[in-house]
Amino acid sequence: MDYRARFLVDPLKKLSLADIDPDDTGDIDKEKAAELTATYLQRMEEDQFLLYADGRQSLLVVLQALDAAGKDGVIRHVFSAMNPQGTRVHGFKQPTPLESAHDFLWRAHAHVPAAGEVVIFNRSHYEDVLVVRVHDLVPREVWSQRYEKINAFEHLLAENGTRILKFFLHISPEEQLERFKKRLDDPRRHWKISESDYSERKFWPQYIEAYEEALVKTSTLTAPWYVIPANHKWFRNLAISQIISETLDEMGLELPPTRVNIDEIKAHYHAAVKATENKKSD
Amino acid sequence: MDYRARFLVDPLKKLSLADIDPDDTGDIDKEKAAELTATYLQRMEEDQFLLYADGRQSLLVVLQALDAAGKDGVIRHVFSAMNPQGTRVHGFKQPTPLESAHDFLWRAHAHVPAAGEVVIFNRSHYEDVLVVRVHDLVPREVWSQRYEKINAFEHLLAENGTRILKFFLHISPEEQLERFKKRLDDPRRHWKISESDYSERKFWPQYIEAYEEALVKTSTLTAPWYVIPANHKWFRNLAISQIISETLDEMGLELPPTRVNIDEIKAHYHAAVKATENKKSD
Repeated sequence: MDYRARFLVDPLKKLSLADIDPDDTGDIDKEKAAELTATYLQRMEEDQFLLYADGRQSLLVVLQALDAAGKDGVIRHVFSAMNPQGTRVHGFKQPTPLESAHDFLWRAHAHVPAAGEVVIFNRSHYEDVLVVRVHDLVPREVWSQRYEKINAFEHLLAENGTRILKFFLHISPEEQLERFKKRLDDPRRHWKISESDYSERKFWPQYIEAYEEALVKTSTLTAPWYVIPANHKWFRNLAISQIISETLDEMGLELPPTRVNIDEIKAHYHAAVKATENKKSD
Repeated sequence: MDYRARFLVDPLKKLSLADIDPDDTGDIDKEKAAELTATYLQRMEEDQFLLYADGRQSLLVVLQALDAAGKDGVIRHVFSAMNPQGTRVHGFKQPTPLESAHDFLWRAHAHVPAAGEVVIFNRSHYEDVLVVRVHDLVPREVWSQRYEKINAFEHLLAENGTRILKFFLHISPEEQLERFKKRLDDPRRHWKISESDYSERKFWPQYIEAYEEALVKTSTLTAPWYVIPANHKWFRNLAISQIISETLDEMGLELPPTRVNIDEIKAHYHAAVKATENKKSD
């Protein structure tokens, strides 16, 4: 099944997340999914090598979701496939004083991929139309004008050779509760629990509303949004790895031309081998 | 076998790389090595999680070697085990004009790990006592005083909670030639070949001399050097993964204390579950 077509956010239609089933697992079972995922991860690794070698384009992956929806899990399970050399994860936390002293895109711009690189944003500049909106951190007149600025920013990146893929991990409130319960039951995860994990839950409808508007207004040809059903981790990983590997496949990546005269180098090489052999027989 | 003890560079003894066999494979065969390496990689992954959670210390790994000795291979095979979130690779190339306009440690300092992070330097500030020395890029009076500056710099990092492990991948000139040949025979790798790969070979003895001095003068308790026999990739990976995982094991990493009242959160949780259930039965 073509998950790019299926999960793409259409910028011309109203998006209602309630109509997308977070339990959706396409037409596939877990076992078959694991097999396919392994294939896509393998392709991602090969394509990343090509991206790096090619050195003309780059890939930016944006991960957004409500708490416990699996951003960290996607990074661990999907992006571990890539060579750490050439792959970077950048997490967005509460802005530092220095970051706050700049426009909202400044800190994102500083971390976009260079040519040849893959960068994953764990949260992103979208927080400035999400958490900022839900908690009224800036006035409506300000955040409501940010969609256009985001599109212009992403367009700039795209024109410079950066492919942008944006994933919203879609879980149900019940699944979130279930995952919170697992954290509460596992002492090894207690250190990570903060009050806000639970207090943010009551803003669920506001977050959904903020996401629905943001996703529609910023799903563009150059930087599409995908809503990934994420109640089932195995399906989430399959859909994301398929979308990434098929996107990379399409980017026309190729090995750069040889910069040197291989025959000349071969002659050098043979001379070097000879020198070593002569040395040995000395 | 304890490879940390075996391959450590003793700062009090003259180092002669010629006396260290790059073909050394300890007391182990390839199959057993693969098994052990898998165990160490697993431990590295677990320890990295702890390092990240603990958030008080960090790990800096420095990889240095002559061309084709396997720096990229170590990154791919050993550090792929770690979660890309929390692991960064920084490659050192020819200094940019901005970098050259600063002291030689400036660019290294900018990329050292933050607390909780693992950073791998692919080449490093050591180039400033290696390639710089071999090619006379600065006068002897300048580079010969850099060992002390490097030690002071690394001491600063160590005092701030950074464990530093430095690996010199030791191959024979014959093995290098063999690997160059493989590149020449594989069209997919031709783009990567540059004239300098072959022209630098004639400086082999000068490089070895530069390494011997640098390793001895900067192998410290806080930032030890290890000379890893690297003609056999499987043994190289085993030795490095053992040294890293045993170092991490010793760092006293632990999960941070719980910041919240878990019982209170559990009460919140139960209330939330109840609310969800009531909603369903509405």
